[in-house]
Amino acid sequence: MRIDLNSDVGESFGRWELGDDEAILGLVSSANVACGFHAGDPTTIARTCRWAVEQGVAIGAQVGYRDLAGFGRRFVDATVRELTDDVVYQIGALQALAAAAGGRVTYVKPHGALYNTAVHHAEHAGAVVDAVASVDPSLPVLGLPGSELLAQAERRGLRPVYEAFADRAYTPGGTLVSRREEGAVLDDPVSVAARVVQMVTEGVVEAVDGTVIRMSVDSVCVHGDSPDAVTMARAVREALADAGVTVETFR
Amino acid sequence: MRIDLNSDVGESFGRWELGDDEAILGLVSSANVACGFHAGDPTTIARTCRWAVEQGVAIGAQVGYRDLAGFGRRFVDATVRELTDDVVYQIGALQALAAAAGGRVTYVKPHGALYNTAVHHAEHAGAVVDAVASVDPSLPVLGLPGSELLAQAERRGLRPVYEAFADRAYTPGGTLVSRREEGAVLDDPVSVAARVVQMVTEGVVEAVDGTVIRMSVDSVCVHGDSPDAVTMARAVREALADAGVTVETFR
Amino acid sequence: MRIDLNSDVGESFGRWELGDDEAILGLVSSANVACGFHAGDPTTIARTCRWAVEQGVAIGAQVGYRDLAGFGRRFVDATVRELTDDVVYQIGALQALAAAAGGRVTYVKPHGALYNTAVHHAEHAGAVVDAVASVDPSLPVLGLPGSELLAQAERRGLRPVYEAFADRAYTPGGTLVSRREEGAVLDDPVSVAARVVQMVTEGVVEAVDGTVIRMSVDSVCVHGDSPDAVTMARAVREALADAGVTVETFR
Amino acid sequence: MRIDLNSDVGESFGRWELGDDEAILGLVSSANVACGFHAGDPTTIARTCRWAVEQGVAIGAQVGYRDLAGFGRRFVDATVRELTDDVVYQIGALQALAAAAGGRVTYVKPHGALYNTAVHHAEHAGAVVDAVASVDPSLPVLGLPGSELLAQAERRGLRPVYEAFADRAYTPGGTLVSRREEGAVLDDPVSVAARVVQMVTEGVVEAVDGTVIRMSVDSVCVHGDSPDAVTMARAVREALADAGVTVETFR
Repeated sequence: MRIDLNSDVGESFGRWELGDDEAILGLVSSANVACGFHAGDPTTIARTCRWAVEQGVAIGAQVGYRDLAGFGRRFVDATVRELTDDVVYQIGALQALAAAAGGRVTYVKPHGALYNTAVHHAEHAGAVVDAVASVDPSLPVLGLPGSELLAQAERRGLRPVYEAFADRAYTPGGTLVSRREEGAVLDDPVSVAARVVQMVTEGVVEAVDGTVIRMSVDSVCVHGDSPDAVTMARAVREALADAGVTVETFR
Repeated sequence: MRIDLNSDVGESFGRWELGDDEAILGLVSSANVACGFHAGDPTTIARTCRWAVEQGVAIGAQVGYRDLAGFGRRFVDATVRELTDDVVYQIGALQALAAAAGGRVTYVKPHGALYNTAVHHAEHAGAVVDAVASVDPSLPVLGLPGSELLAQAERRGLRPVYEAFADRAYTPGGTLVSRREEGAVLDDPVSVAARVVQMVTEGVVEAVDGTVIRMSVDSVCVHGDSPDAVTMARAVREALADAGVTVETFR
Repeated sequence: MRIDLNSDVGESFGRWELGDDEAILGLVSSANVACGFHAGDPTTIARTCRWAVEQGVAIGAQVGYRDLAGFGRRFVDATVRELTDDVVYQIGALQALAAAAGGRVTYVKPHGALYNTAVHHAEHAGAVVDAVASVDPSLPVLGLPGSELLAQAERRGLRPVYEAFADRAYTPGGTLVSRREEGAVLDDPVSVAARVVQMVTEGVVEAVDGTVIRMSVDSVCVHGDSPDAVTMARAVREALADAGVTVETFR
Repeated sequence: MRIDLNSDVGESFGRWELGDDEAILGLVSSANVACGFHAGDPTTIARTCRWAVEQGVAIGAQVGYRDLAGFGRRFVDATVRELTDDVVYQIGALQALAAAAGGRVTYVKPHGALYNTAVHHAEHAGAVVDAVASVDPSLPVLGLPGSELLAQAERRGLRPVYEAFADRAYTPGGTLVSRREEGAVLDDPVSVAARVVQMVTEGVVEAVDGTVIRMSVDSVCVHGDSPDAVTMARAVREALADAGVTVETFR
């Protein structure tokens, strides 16, 4: 059995450091590298790509709204034209930095507010899909199962990659519990690791109300920027190893 | 006989428009497209690339310091590492937008303060050269004859492309008269056009003191953003045609 | 009889110029000066303030979302805390530049998407009102009659200033016809001028369907950045003079 | 005996946190608050001002070049006009946020590359002085003894405030040892604290070569953003208390 672990990296900016990217890249198989619009100056991106290449980790374009001050966590009502071009720009910038580091971009994952918006907002989901298709239609798109983004990606002939979140609570309907509600984010490494193992080996996860729901995914996201991110990622990685699951990037 | 005409384009930003790019692209053979750091939002860049592709004009990456407020006309004392990565980022972003428009980036030309700095500043010239070499060593670098930039480009095995300025006065030593001095910028289309024809057909130009100096170049820059830019470019283009010179991009 | 004419100015940014501010400031009585978040670098703002002081025109803070690339025309889902602080920051920056020019800020008017959002979005309207109240509760707030913004301003003890748009069509309900509909923007200087005179002298305006509606306002906005802005503003100004109406800032 | 301790604060930006401002503000008497151009989003600035007001710490405007990506540590060759207006803008923005927090700006201190440039660069030093004079000539300017900045400030009738650095080595000539040289930054809290006490009580400091030099200052800068910043500041504060020195802002 095998699974992909992905994590957000390259999210420092100039003087400001965020996350222990080098350590996280020793634990995951896919690196969602920020592309400069919500985080990630070129030198941070370049260094992150070098680390990813050294560790054999796949490089993905973590594209976002143009919003440094809000870290891409705020919806920006961009036109479809603007958003499409912004995403193409970000992917291209990362492609060049990845190539200079001896690697290449192998997938795309929207960040923050763009990720959440693309779950239901047809126009913005379409802009991301159009951007990917116009840059390189062989690039898979990583997103939430059931999202508008992955539905459109599939219709356009792009490969959708379904992901779950290691440390997020799910509703009985299979959607994420809002961060505004208590218990939305799980913080115990042991139980988070056990959840991930269950998702991968049994294809199920326990929702907040105790219901056991189907959760069949290609990739699991472990967060990279919380204080205990490395501890959490290591617990997940080790539990998967103990369960005989190989961590490697989706095909 | 043949010569390349290049011009700065794609320098609008959001609501702010600069230059009549569509008209200029009907007159030149090479388009120095801004890459977002001194000017050029992604949608402007995308549109400019589409026009360039439609008109059969070569697309070059006009890379600059990260300085929107100063339009890249202010020296920024970036480290070599920062500048190298900034240039790679810009080239990559343009490559993706050019590809999405059905074209590709075929050369690199520094903009504004970076252009002027790279004439003599070994570290910043080297950063540009390193960036180009790491993205694609087949990309020629456009610059001033005698500049540190082109000297380093040549040593690194990149193709240097020597350019002259259609509307700038030269010193007897072959350098540009500073913009701070009177007469630095020529504004009569007829005499500018005659100068360009003389440069191309005779390989000489008259300096400010009347001395005739050698000026053997691969490309001539016509400015794109002055009020009379289109008139000037048209005069140059027509004078070249009358002299039997073909305008086409350097191989 | 008297009326205030206001116009957006100071919306250039670095190399990019927008509008003929000096001419417009000879025709209006209130200058909505951009504060750097959607447009307006400090040098542009300083120059605009000097012109306003020279012409005896009131200086208002035209505050917007942090969105240079979108010219503040895109809704940004900022938190109330962020937006409040952003507005305080912008007002303060303008206050210092106005003071350095010998003037002072005498009112606040939201720009673009913030203006439109504050018509109905209670939280963002409240953020603007809180910001103004915390900087200087004697500053009036300029906005749309019936807007959440002016309702909240009034409840907080700030003075609401009701404005109409010289060149925008109105629905029978007194709201603006959306720019996406045909006929939303009027472009004939003569009829626009006549409308403004009717608003001021009779307190009515003709809606798109011919209905005559009440429109009692303290200020009329004339646009500053369209190609014919100066012509339009001059026509309005002259028509008001012919009708015996004095143009001067609200108290 | 008394001395002022100043520290850089408010240098977080959006998602990126820097320094433990709340703790530092419990130890110093003057807060150099970032103003948004090199660091400091409005919400960070507002919160920092509230903490400063609560702790009775003076608020100073820490003005810098417009360079978020470089944290204001890179010289930017701005024109005098641009730099003057940029500094006025920053001071004003902070004034409004400080006022909203119940405080006010009582001095100005340049940051990073602007601080270093203003030691010797007459035009940029003059721009800072002009900006302060035009906003409020009663605001003191904090800088290096012997700097062009303080010389010009004094000539313009502004109060110069001379500062030393707690943790920086000095040359026999009284200038700072360059950060590029070994031993430029001192990291032992005990010896740093002893140096500060000696500066304040005896007016001398030991240079790198052992020479004892005069060092008569109004304020001592303790750094706020290193990992041990709080430890260092506490050691200095306690050593001053033990020596009977009161820590309070310059008049």
